[in-house]
Amino acid sequence: MDITIPRGYQFAGVSANIKARPNTKDVSLLVSNVPAVAAGVYTQNQVVAAPVVLCRSRTPMSHARAIVINSGNANACTGAQGDRDANNMCELVSGSMPDMESADVLVMSTGVIGKFLPMDKVEKGILAASQTLSSSTDGFLAAADGILTTDAGRKITSRSCQLGSREIRIAGMAKGAGMIGPNMATMLCCILTDAPLTSPQAQQLLTTAANVSFNNISVEGHTSTNDTMLLMANGQAGGAPLTESELAEFAEHLQSMCIELAKKIPADGEGATHLIEICVRGANNEQDARRVAKEVASSNLVKSAIYGGDPNWGRIVSAAGYANVPITISKLSLTLNGIALFAAGEPLSFDTKVASQAIRDNFNTVIELTIGDGPGECHHWTSDLTVEYVRFNSEYTT
Amino acid sequence: MDITIPRGYQFAGVSANIKARPNTKDVSLLVSNVPAVAAGVYTQNQVVAAPVVLCRSRTPMSHARAIVINSGNANACTGAQGDRDANNMCELVSGSMPDMESADVLVMSTGVIGKFLPMDKVEKGILAASQTLSSSTDGFLAAADGILTTDAGRKITSRSCQLGSREIRIAGMAKGAGMIGPNMATMLCCILTDAPLTSPQAQQLLTTAANVSFNNISVEGHTSTNDTMLLMANGQAGGAPLTESELAEFAEHLQSMCIELAKKIPADGEGATHLIEICVRGANNEQDARRVAKEVASSNLVKSAIYGGDPNWGRIVSAAGYANVPITISKLSLTLNGIALFAAGEPLSFDTKVASQAIRDNFNTVIELTIGDGPGECHHWTSDLTVEYVRFNSEYTT
Repeated sequence: MDITIPRGYQFAGVSANIKARPNTKDVSLLVSNVPAVAAGVYTQNQVVAAPVVLCRSRTPMSHARAIVINSGNANACTGAQGDRDANNMCELVSGSMPDMESADVLVMSTGVIGKFLPMDKVEKGILAASQTLSSSTDGFLAAADGILTTDAGRKITSRSCQLGSREIRIAGMAKGAGMIGPNMATMLCCILTDAPLTSPQAQQLLTTAANVSFNNISVEGHTSTNDTMLLMANGQAGGAPLTESELAEFAEHLQSMCIELAKKIPADGEGATHLIEICVRGANNEQDARRVAKEVASSNLVKSAIYGGDPNWGRIVSAAGYANVPITISKLSLTLNGIALFAAGEPLSFDTKVASQAIRDNFNTVIELTIGDGPGECHHWTSDLTVEYVRFNSEYTT
Repeated sequence: MDITIPRGYQFAGVSANIKARPNTKDVSLLVSNVPAVAAGVYTQNQVVAAPVVLCRSRTPMSHARAIVINSGNANACTGAQGDRDANNMCELVSGSMPDMESADVLVMSTGVIGKFLPMDKVEKGILAASQTLSSSTDGFLAAADGILTTDAGRKITSRSCQLGSREIRIAGMAKGAGMIGPNMATMLCCILTDAPLTSPQAQQLLTTAANVSFNNISVEGHTSTNDTMLLMANGQAGGAPLTESELAEFAEHLQSMCIELAKKIPADGEGATHLIEICVRGANNEQDARRVAKEVASSNLVKSAIYGGDPNWGRIVSAAGYANVPITISKLSLTLNGIALFAAGEPLSFDTKVASQAIRDNFNTVIELTIGDGPGECHHWTSDLTVEYVRFNSEYTT
């Protein structure tokens, strides 16, 4: 696998037996060799996990050195003990590394809600991770594996881009397959770059990228307590701050990489057999388009129809109708995998078998919905609702 | 079955082969022998079926004579043809009955979206129904059966109540098992009474009752295009208008009957193995409590956990957290079937096996969630999300 590792970072992923399954990586450490700027975007759930509270209080920042992540336990709904544990994780990292302060460390947790962290295991894991740090591809992959929970596979992206005379490198990793609802940054995601960015620049770039990527994905629409997306930029590509046009180009790269990573989550949604892209156009504004896309994506009726290869378009149109967004029925049109099913408020005749086969034959299903003639547009990605999803989620903790 | 039929009504339910399954009742007719007041509450979906448009323009009214209902076809998303067909159904009813105007008739349709009504079959059905009208229990039951679609069984309620010196009778029928979302009046429901009510009284009574019953149920939260709830009152109990205290007593009866009917819908939710009652307390106001209850009820993670007998309370607390309602974490408490799982923002230790068994052993699951110390409270009823629900809804039209 061809991975571009940004300059000046080291990685580790180790098994600390926090997860029930033995010998599965569950503690990851990402370290910048020099102070980096760091920006964050977080869950909008009011019930937030302890690591979110901690990170939110620290970002944006210009002295970030490390991100420590454990999987298998979300450290959410854990009260004051949870706050102490999150803080302790940062201290364990800084204590095991030279020249690092606890305040330079960010922390993420993911896994089951409402259990206290097994801090003895976490401590051993952090120590082991700090001793196996590496700037190699293997190190990066180990870290990307250590953040997974119910994911079927790792979710990574990397690229090298030429900005003027400078080669900038960007790499990212994400996790998520369930409890995925589009309200920010669903799940965990770390993007690392060696670009020289200021912390306000990093924050704005990240917020914008989250808005077109992780904010537009869902599995079942349940916003988690732990969603966190962090961007670190350590400037090790060298040179002067990015010019305005270089920044714009960087933003484009960042957005397309975030979309690429974000789509991997519903594509790997628990039990998913289809990645559904919902394109809403003609809304009065982007927010309205987003609401309609979210309602369609949240409809179990739409999602189970796609699972069954059923072009039951009435479910899609009716979901759009309860999104609390102005809709001009006479301008309402729908295509499914390019086949027109409903146009200008009237049903079209179409070959049900052909439409059904077009769903069955493709992992990707594209729903295009026009709701008026405004400029608002949104692309949302979700998974289908399958028998396997229900089976899996009825057996999670017990 | 002991059913109290209000005075001055006749009923019929016949098979017109609109539904695919042969010899299944699919046209129902409810007739008041004298002009009655009628009130309606309708879906808040912007994409509304033709019969909803028609009824909405007529209620509240004081000259209602009949409600005609077909199942098997929703007459939704059918454009101008759909409007003509709905109007035609009213004309077919008035044409087959003496002394009735088309404008005295209300109409409901339920079934698949986006297909034109087979008006030849509908016409034969209405004629047959008009010729078999009866004030007997059998007539009432036939009508209650004719409105069903994916329901496992009929949903009816009736009672006789003594208001002062007067005996007032009330009877109701409802249908619904899927596409059930709490935004009014989900599904179809007709309540008939012989009480003397004015049409503004009828409208206010119905709106209030809908708010504590049908507005607080869901199966998957998908608001349908056809939701309609009608109340007819023909005054055949005799006597003067109800006094204020009689009206209050009537309202209580109506509300408890609506709750009884409404609960039958998620209890019969497609594939359901549990009826889940979500009680939210301590909100700043009723609307906030309602939002939290709705988010919990809409969470596939919560619903599939109950299906699996899994007391995974983190899913419940986190769903409450993204309802956009102020929550005081330190006052957040949760019990599941009476077992305290989370209190004052801290996890409690409990016996997982006992909690799981309490879910498995009961069809009813009660989730009690306190989110603060305000006066706002709401009771919402929903079904669990099961493998059978997904299987069923992936095979609906094709």
